[in-house]
Amino acid sequence: MSVRVYLAGPEVFLANAREQLDKKIALTRAAGLIPVSPGDLAIPDTPTKREKGHAISQIDEGFMLSADAIIANLTPYRGQNADTGTCYELGFMCALGKAAFGYTNVAAGHYERQHRHYAGAITPGADGRLRGSDGMLIEDVDMIDNLMMHGGIERRGGVVVVGNAPADAIYTDLAAFEEVLAIAAARLLK
Amino acid sequence: MSVRVYLAGPEVFLANAREQLDKKIALTRAAGLIPVSPGDLAIPDTPTKREKGHAISQIDEGFMLSADAIIANLTPYRGQNADTGTCYELGFMCALGKAAFGYTNVAAGHYERQHRHYAGAITPGADGRLRGSDGMLIEDVDMIDNLMMHGGIERRGGVVVVGNAPADAIYTDLAAFEEVLAIAAARLLK
Repeated sequence: MSVRVYLAGPEVFLANAREQLDKKIALTRAAGLIPVSPGDLAIPDTPTKREKGHAISQIDEGFMLSADAIIANLTPYRGQNADTGTCYELGFMCALGKAAFGYTNVAAGHYERQHRHYAGAITPGADGRLRGSDGMLIEDVDMIDNLMMHGGIERRGGVVVVGNAPADAIYTDLAAFEEVLAIAAARLLK
Repeated sequence: MSVRVYLAGPEVFLANAREQLDKKIALTRAAGLIPVSPGDLAIPDTPTKREKGHAISQIDEGFMLSADAIIANLTPYRGQNADTGTCYELGFMCALGKAAFGYTNVAAGHYERQHRHYAGAITPGADGRLRGSDGMLIEDVDMIDNLMMHGGIERRGGVVVVGNAPADAIYTDLAAFEEVLAIAAARLLK
């Protein structure tokens, strides 16, 4: 059986992107699955920057359409939440009924990270619900990020693995990826 | 003709969410479209927080499935990028072939906001590509956020409207929403 898995995540932005992606690709192959990696794309020459963006978007969507499943790296990126491109891709695959799995390398959940974002300045609003100092609602549903992602994965029978990588390795540590990969392989290859 | 439009965005988190959502709902109706708003959901009682998250995820996905189009508010939220739940929803609708439109209330694009994120500490890496102080790639494709969102909308023939709301009104100003709503209505109702 040949099962293709799209490897979504912010690794494409790393200075050592090729090395990191190659490690994930090798692990995926070793698990018996066929890796589909956005880092494999050849970036085409285009007349404008905008068209370059369109071209990459088209290539990555094509990769997703060719895949049977997604493993999304939802580790917080440049702030308290996951990489927005990865979130788009997870929604894309969930809508198509593909198998969906996720992981994060940061043990602190969404609720705890929201507290950090507001430096603890969180109080009940007029409606009794917890709100940050800017009035924004504190999502408190025991998940690793916005409920559309975590809920979208789990409601489809997928799994979200929560790792706890060292601070200097949250984009390179592969323990949580290996754990969710093993779960995905067991389910997808049975 | 009856065209249903899902109104995605971080307004659901506002202290005055109901008021803000009602304004968007009224404008959408006035434009001749049928609003489908995540703020309309009745949050069910559940035994656990996690199950509450699943329930809301299921309701919102059901709303999206019932809609013909999406207008996504991609205004940066709690950081330099759009609300992650909105990004999931945009990917979800794009995958289903629904019409997709977006807007932001922040005039500074993704490239400029990345400079702010790194406080200008951006230099070419060993590969010649611009990178932040943490080595992460600076996406430079003339878009308002990660290319999957902006590209996903434009490649489907949709439009991204860039507004410029006052700093204290980036989640409540409706000028950019009204502009993209008019474009969406003209296309969807023709």
